[in-house]
Amino acid sequence: MKKLIVGQSGGPTSVINASLAGVYYEAKKRGFDKVYGMVNGIEGLLNEKIVDLDDYFLDKNNLELLKRTPSSFLGTCRFKMGSIKEHEETYEKVFKILDKQEIDSLIYIGGNDSMDTVESLSDYALLKKKKQNFIGVPKTIDNDLPITDHCPGFGSACKYIATTLREIIQDNNCYGDTKPTVAIVEIMGRHAGWLTSASALAKDETCEGVDAIYLPEIPFDLDTFVEETKELLKKKSSITIAVSEGIKTEDDQFVCELTDSNLIVDSFGHKELAGCAEILAKLLKEKLNVKTRAITLSTLQRAAAHLASKNDLEEAFNCGRKGAELAYKNQSGKMVIMNRVSNDPYKIKYEVFDDIHKIANVEKKIPLEWIDVDNNYVKTELIDYLKPLIQGEVKQIYKDGLPQHINLNKK
Amino acid sequence: MKKLIVGQSGGPTSVINASLAGVYYEAKKRGFDKVYGMVNGIEGLLNEKIVDLDDYFLDKNNLELLKRTPSSFLGTCRFKMGSIKEHEETYEKVFKILDKQEIDSLIYIGGNDSMDTVESLSDYALLKKKKQNFIGVPKTIDNDLPITDHCPGFGSACKYIATTLREIIQDNNCYGDTKPTVAIVEIMGRHAGWLTSASALAKDETCEGVDAIYLPEIPFDLDTFVEETKELLKKKSSITIAVSEGIKTEDDQFVCELTDSNLIVDSFGHKELAGCAEILAKLLKEKLNVKTRAITLSTLQRAAAHLASKNDLEEAFNCGRKGAELAYKNQSGKMVIMNRVSNDPYKIKYEVFDDIHKIANVEKKIPLEWIDVDNNYVKTELIDYLKPLIQGEVKQIYKDGLPQHINLNKK
Repeated sequence: MKKLIVGQSGGPTSVINASLAGVYYEAKKRGFDKVYGMVNGIEGLLNEKIVDLDDYFLDKNNLELLKRTPSSFLGTCRFKMGSIKEHEETYEKVFKILDKQEIDSLIYIGGNDSMDTVESLSDYALLKKKKQNFIGVPKTIDNDLPITDHCPGFGSACKYIATTLREIIQDNNCYGDTKPTVAIVEIMGRHAGWLTSASALAKDETCEGVDAIYLPEIPFDLDTFVEETKELLKKKSSITIAVSEGIKTEDDQFVCELTDSNLIVDSFGHKELAGCAEILAKLLKEKLNVKTRAITLSTLQRAAAHLASKNDLEEAFNCGRKGAELAYKNQSGKMVIMNRVSNDPYKIKYEVFDDIHKIANVEKKIPLEWIDVDNNYVKTELIDYLKPLIQGEVKQIYKDGLPQHINLNKK
Repeated sequence: MKKLIVGQSGGPTSVINASLAGVYYEAKKRGFDKVYGMVNGIEGLLNEKIVDLDDYFLDKNNLELLKRTPSSFLGTCRFKMGSIKEHEETYEKVFKILDKQEIDSLIYIGGNDSMDTVESLSDYALLKKKKQNFIGVPKTIDNDLPITDHCPGFGSACKYIATTLREIIQDNNCYGDTKPTVAIVEIMGRHAGWLTSASALAKDETCEGVDAIYLPEIPFDLDTFVEETKELLKKKSSITIAVSEGIKTEDDQFVCELTDSNLIVDSFGHKELAGCAEILAKLLKEKLNVKTRAITLSTLQRAAAHLASKNDLEEAFNCGRKGAELAYKNQSGKMVIMNRVSNDPYKIKYEVFDDIHKIANVEKKIPLEWIDVDNNYVKTELIDYLKPLIQGEVKQIYKDGLPQHINLNKK
């Protein structure tokens, strides 16, 4: 009897469940007798919240639904194992439960923090000569994991952002010269601007694209921003600007946390109340006397499975499969990575990265040479990197006009 | 030579261009020699900003793209003709331009204000024995036009809202019992709750749906809201609440305009900065010490053509066609309406409403008997009314992973 358990951790994405589907599919194919899911990650495992995935996915239709269901089917957590020295009892508890269930392999689908968990557990197993192996499968909309070319989840978020921006640009243009308008669109990514850079994809021969992109990699100056927008408004009446939620001033303050005391705009209000798009929209309205609109893409950019990228969904599935393959081969402390063998035609090889220590807790930012600082835009290299990730559409399963999902509490 | 001019007015929708496509298609079919478009509505017409639609749409592929392009292809305006008595020179100018271009018929696609324009111009034509006729084609995401069963544009917005809410509910559930979370989703509709009520459509056997719906038709009380959410949190850990941007307190104050002086939450900040979802999220966080998230659907709900309802798009097209038919028949001062002949099977008849005075400037709200006040929800009658409007998916035209649109400045 060979048994595997899989969990999901960290913020959800549109395709994290496709990785779960991939793990299940490959594990069954390889002959694992049981494929369990831990509910709410390691935190749930510690409470023995375990389900048998056969109960849901022996029916192949359900596996197809799973691929199209956003968020984490198994639930997620933000749980840190902590150091072995200080938290040995937690480690022992995990292994006690794994032993009790006779589990051989644990696969964890997640981002930086989750890879930290995979690393800690595999280190502990090595140290204490436990039989279990531990494999990490990457996911994050933020695309901030190092080593892997990109992360499953990122491409679908990019597709959502670019599509939505096209629609916003169309909408924003509707008053033409009769009413100058600035739309500021706030995009996720606290420390890395990958998602915000995807706004550049909106542009093609039928769409003028966004007029400026402000990334957290480049210090943000409020006065310069006002001046730059003023210049843009001299050339055209409808402006769309993409900003990362994580833009910071030269002295390392998040724009979204600026308050009255910074004297930028009177009565900003509580810093938790407004996002940076709202703050900047207000600023422009006051300084340039122009109609502004703040749009925050919020949760939608990580949950819009109805707009998933086919490439991204397939890669998420394949990363899950690769994870199960590694587990089957008794590898441990390793993460599945994607290696872009060629860009045109786009070709990905699924590989293994041995030294998970180099992945956990490292944030990959946009290389500065891919940013066009002078024009508040991104360079062709970055657009070429992003383009393949949004290709292809996933055929949705609609019922009564709405996409269908699958839920843990409804078998 | 028979000539027609068409314009778009008011806030755009996902399918207002499908109505434009319908006008063009039918007008050409009926033998109009010229079909012009006015750029930015009557405001543009007054500046003789006129285009020949043949330049764009003799190519049938472009007509298909037009149907799938959100916002107003011709641009829009918010221009009021004003009373004939006070603005006779504006009226004369309009007719002078129409005469100069030898235009016989004017079709205006829009909401309440636009119907006011149609009414005024047709009254003036009658009064001054002008030869032109004027026809209104309805559009509005708000669904607040009277007489017609519903408005083109509304169904697609409902489909977007329900789909997005399903995805938000999935996302919101991901922490399970480990972290109680309340998501507050703010939906458009300043005076009528139609759009917000569409949040009820998210619920089916695979989705638990939203937990409460707050409509502008019912006075909103902040303390009661906190208490009601507290009760919901006793039953489940992940709560999703739909609120209309237009909810008002008993003393007729918009919640989104409440400020410090109302002593609800300290340091709300400037009333223009935050929407009501943000205010309510902050309130719940302070009073119930729970994780909250404010999501504002904003422009996206009226521009998300990629999620257009097939029924809605076809109805928008047919309303446009009917408008051109009426113009051809020299009718004037009339609006196209939709009459729901039966609900199951869903069947719409396109009819004419003679007395446009009864449409212009009247706002249709949700009938109170369709609202379940005790449970902060809507009744089955309302759900039955909404359901047919979101049925069917529109096959999008994708290129390089993104939906294609057509623009006035790019033939």
